[in-house]
Amino acid sequence: MVARKKKARPKTLQSKSGAQLRYIGVIRSELKERSQAPMQGSEGAPDAWIDIRPFAREALHGMQIGSDIVVLTWLHRSRRDVLKVHPRSDRSRPLTGVFWTRSPDRPNPIGLHRVTVREITQTGLRVGPIEAIDGTPVVDIKPVLPTSRDF
Amino acid sequence: MVARKKKARPKTLQSKSGAQLRYIGVIRSELKERSQAPMQGSEGAPDAWIDIRPFAREALHGMQIGSDIVVLTWLHRSRRDVLKVHPRSDRSRPLTGVFWTRSPDRPNPIGLHRVTVREITQTGLRVGPIEAIDGTPVVDIKPVLPTSRDF
Repeated sequence: MVARKKKARPKTLQSKSGAQLRYIGVIRSELKERSQAPMQGSEGAPDAWIDIRPFAREALHGMQIGSDIVVLTWLHRSRRDVLKVHPRSDRSRPLTGVFWTRSPDRPNPIGLHRVTVREITQTGLRVGPIEAIDGTPVVDIKPVLPTSRDF
Repeated sequence: MVARKKKARPKTLQSKSGAQLRYIGVIRSELKERSQAPMQGSEGAPDAWIDIRPFAREALHGMQIGSDIVVLTWLHRSRRDVLKVHPRSDRSRPLTGVFWTRSPDRPNPIGLHRVTVREITQTGLRVGPIEAIDGTPVVDIKPVLPTSRDF
């Protein structure tokens, strides 16, 4: 009797080296350049609109004005080849791994922004305060969990 | 005199519809299937290892044991074509837009996990508690900001 070959482990995405993000919306802000933007939303950032792309609008169903959400952005002006930085661009502070800083320059420049929902329309949301600049793509939106340590 | 054509607006990534994530590591956990995993880390999840890929290890420089970090994962077993779900898979709860839930099924299945750093080695970290299953790709790691509302 011929020995059966050991069944191959099913191929999943874990064997690949990356994945493709699909933008679900874009930030519309009075902040036009990185140099204008505060480093964190709590540091004097304005409110902004998030235009949601038509395919994703259904995913807003149930969202409530006044709630806190986490907006995940793709910081498209960032450098992806930087692994160490001076925190807050302060050269007196030692070079630090980007996973131990909030620098926008990092291998996958995903921004996390905790904001309050101000207004909801057919095509998007007004939220704030948020330091992301005009044109920044949005990749996800999540509620803040009251029962979790997460936020 | 020939009228000059209006200068084209510079092309940036904001005109595209997506971006490519590059995995920076992978979760190694005793949780092997989604069905075993609690819905949130605070609901009885174990500790796990994050193996960091060689190209990204330098970005851990300065990280401290005992600190809280946010691990961003790519929830590779998720469905990306789902826009509404019953929260916590409870069919008695009304269908809700995924941007108003923490469902792993969503257009860009990025997971956010606030965890404590237990151990740091040359090749990665032990962190916990974390509900992500074995083999889940990691896309970013950020410190929790003590001065921010973010976490």
